[in-house]
Amino acid sequence: MQIILLSGGSGKRLWPLSNDIRSKQFLKLLTDENGNKESIVQRTFSQIRITQPDAHITIATNEAQADIIKSQLGQSVDIVIEPERRDTFPAIALACAHLFYEKNISDNEAIFVLPCDPFTEVEFFRTLSKLEKIINANTADIALIGIKPLHPTSKYGYIVPSSEIEPGEYSVSHFVEKPDEEKAAQLIKEGAYWNGGVFAFKLGSILNAAKSNVDFNNFNELYKKYSELQKISFDYKIVENAKRIAVVPYSGKWTDIGTWCTLAEEMPETALGLVTRKKTHNTFIVNELNIPLIALSTKDVVIAASPDGILVSDLSESSQLKQFVDTLENTQPMYEERHWGESTVLGKYAHSQVKHLYFAAGKFISNQPHKYSTKIWVIASGEGNFTLGCDRKKIVTGDILKIEYGQKHKIEAISDLHIIEIQTGNKLDENDIQKFE
Amino acid sequence: MQIILLSGGSGKRLWPLSNDIRSKQFLKLLTDENGNKESIVQRTFSQIRITQPDAHITIATNEAQADIIKSQLGQSVDIVIEPERRDTFPAIALACAHLFYEKNISDNEAIFVLPCDPFTEVEFFRTLSKLEKIINANTADIALIGIKPLHPTSKYGYIVPSSEIEPGEYSVSHFVEKPDEEKAAQLIKEGAYWNGGVFAFKLGSILNAAKSNVDFNNFNELYKKYSELQKISFDYKIVENAKRIAVVPYSGKWTDIGTWCTLAEEMPETALGLVTRKKTHNTFIVNELNIPLIALSTKDVVIAASPDGILVSDLSESSQLKQFVDTLENTQPMYEERHWGESTVLGKYAHSQVKHLYFAAGKFISNQPHKYSTKIWVIASGEGNFTLGCDRKKIVTGDILKIEYGQKHKIEAISDLHIIEIQTGNKLDENDIQKFE
Repeated sequence: MQIILLSGGSGKRLWPLSNDIRSKQFLKLLTDENGNKESIVQRTFSQIRITQPDAHITIATNEAQADIIKSQLGQSVDIVIEPERRDTFPAIALACAHLFYEKNISDNEAIFVLPCDPFTEVEFFRTLSKLEKIINANTADIALIGIKPLHPTSKYGYIVPSSEIEPGEYSVSHFVEKPDEEKAAQLIKEGAYWNGGVFAFKLGSILNAAKSNVDFNNFNELYKKYSELQKISFDYKIVENAKRIAVVPYSGKWTDIGTWCTLAEEMPETALGLVTRKKTHNTFIVNELNIPLIALSTKDVVIAASPDGILVSDLSESSQLKQFVDTLENTQPMYEERHWGESTVLGKYAHSQVKHLYFAAGKFISNQPHKYSTKIWVIASGEGNFTLGCDRKKIVTGDILKIEYGQKHKIEAISDLHIIEIQTGNKLDENDIQKFE
Repeated sequence: MQIILLSGGSGKRLWPLSNDIRSKQFLKLLTDENGNKESIVQRTFSQIRITQPDAHITIATNEAQADIIKSQLGQSVDIVIEPERRDTFPAIALACAHLFYEKNISDNEAIFVLPCDPFTEVEFFRTLSKLEKIINANTADIALIGIKPLHPTSKYGYIVPSSEIEPGEYSVSHFVEKPDEEKAAQLIKEGAYWNGGVFAFKLGSILNAAKSNVDFNNFNELYKKYSELQKISFDYKIVENAKRIAVVPYSGKWTDIGTWCTLAEEMPETALGLVTRKKTHNTFIVNELNIPLIALSTKDVVIAASPDGILVSDLSESSQLKQFVDTLENTQPMYEERHWGESTVLGKYAHSQVKHLYFAAGKFISNQPHKYSTKIWVIASGEGNFTLGCDRKKIVTGDILKIEYGQKHKIEAISDLHIIEIQTGNKLDENDIQKFE
């Protein structure tokens, strides 16, 4: 089974934990069976592993998220990185080209596209086998999962079924995109489902759709012509134009935990991090800073602190958050999870910036020279090997490394390595970020 | 006029802004006539300057607060530092010895002792002249200010007057220390006053009381024998044993803003620092961190963030704060205001600690060598002169300085100087702090 997981989105609704790099699907707010913290993307990944152990998963994403995906899902995960942010049709087309040209998947094979961020149960993914049957039997061009609605809401799109094809399979009459609540209630009465954004189709059908738009004969050709692909959603380009669409119903938990309020509903009275609390009621607290947080007698609020900022909000009003985050001046993410560890901005001054870099033990990283600024690295803790140009040496706590602009350098963490980086330069550019590879 | 201002106390009730060094009287939460931020001690100092422009003010304090007092009141302020924390009688006796032996003040002169932290009006300090008249006329041994109570409270001590000596001056019958509210209401009916902790007396009387306890003939002798002085409050040792006590009433604003709740009453809807807020109601916000804070639809709460921690508390429950702060493990202050600038802990690791040091332009500092740890200084911004042993050199942004343990060093800030300090060592001791002199 070939699954394409779509990972995108910027994270203003769960600010300050989410930012342009760390979208909501990467926040480690959930707890797995062993009591370890996990993110939604990690949960989705392991849920698929349970129901579809033989599935090959490809992540379609953008460059900003590639590092955090590797950090959370492992270095060997198959990633297709879009050269620029367009829409879901180009992103899915590029992932399909990758599967056909680079993974030698037959154009007759069923492909499944899933968003990576719904909060659902294992049972949801078992439904994929039913979609597979439909596509393989060629009784529909596109097969979807329809979620049995729990309440009328204007947050989701609706799938309106017509006749039953087989037991538990319906042909689709039409789609209604985000209706008002009154209309939603009417649709539910008529038997409509929430659109879970899950699509199954034959690989060849999407390649043909892409080829009718742009001419290509291998992955790299499509990659280079990516900006010529129509900037349109998969729903509008493919699904709404398909002649034969089938929907398979799913009844069970399925939520978009895209706001603090929905998160608190799933995990009431959460307190993560260095938190002391007393007499709190319906209070959701996450503290990612290394300083203590005390909450006393708070009620119906979310309190979240990260290197990017601090939020205190009434839970029911927290859905308004995005507009206020939009007004903040500094949008540079202060915290980044990387495949080699973590990077946190500690301070910014007139012509310098101070960061804490954490390299996990065993990680081996070489990097591109930066263009404008000089970096000073002081080893705050741990040991490793450092190569500057052709010189290689062992580094330990207290060592000072000076990297002038243009100098190539490599670092290998023998034990967990904490480095304080002071970046200085008259032309200090936020984009002059080291690219570790 | 000789005034002794008592500055002490640790600051758990206004955590995380206050800490063992920065007591509540040093928090710059008030606004002066020119719109600049000022602390209570700065406000008290300038209020005295208005009503008693010729007064000489001596600050009786402990070593931890000496630096912040100089930073806020100027290098030339007269400070007497107690060699160890005892109680108010020893502290006042030491300040009196300083005035007699080192400032050549006559033992017949009236001395005024004032706490530095009440939030009051200029009029309050005009009352000192009335106390002075009483002490100079020798109609009482001790003269006090009695504040006309605004409501019955168990927070303060009460002064119960007896007969009128002169218009506006009463002899004192007795004192009642922190009665319950019912008793307080009864005392107010009987004409009792709040005890403002202001004492006037003749210098010689306190020197004699101290000499009956410890033998000394100059300031240094008393300083060395400080631990032998009775550990007792000035109230118990002197005031309650005095034969002739007079009280002068004061009617007007006078508050102990020792909790977030009383602070919010004085300054409703305060928002200091990097704060965005919307639809907040009766919300007091102070953000001393360099990251944005967003408050949405909060009600009756205090939100405070500093390098020491984050507090979110219902205002009326915030008086319970101290007991929860007492349970926090790390009590090392993360932020310190010094006479040369500021010091903030950015991070702590296994065998190292990272600080941001800010030296204000023009400050010239030499320091003691530290015993156990090596310090690396990276100049993040600004320029200055640095002397290590006998070598003096100019330092600019990007320079790296390594100071091994035992090495004497001096620094002079030419412009505002921001330094990142990485302190490393196997025997990293929190008390191994540089002493700048």
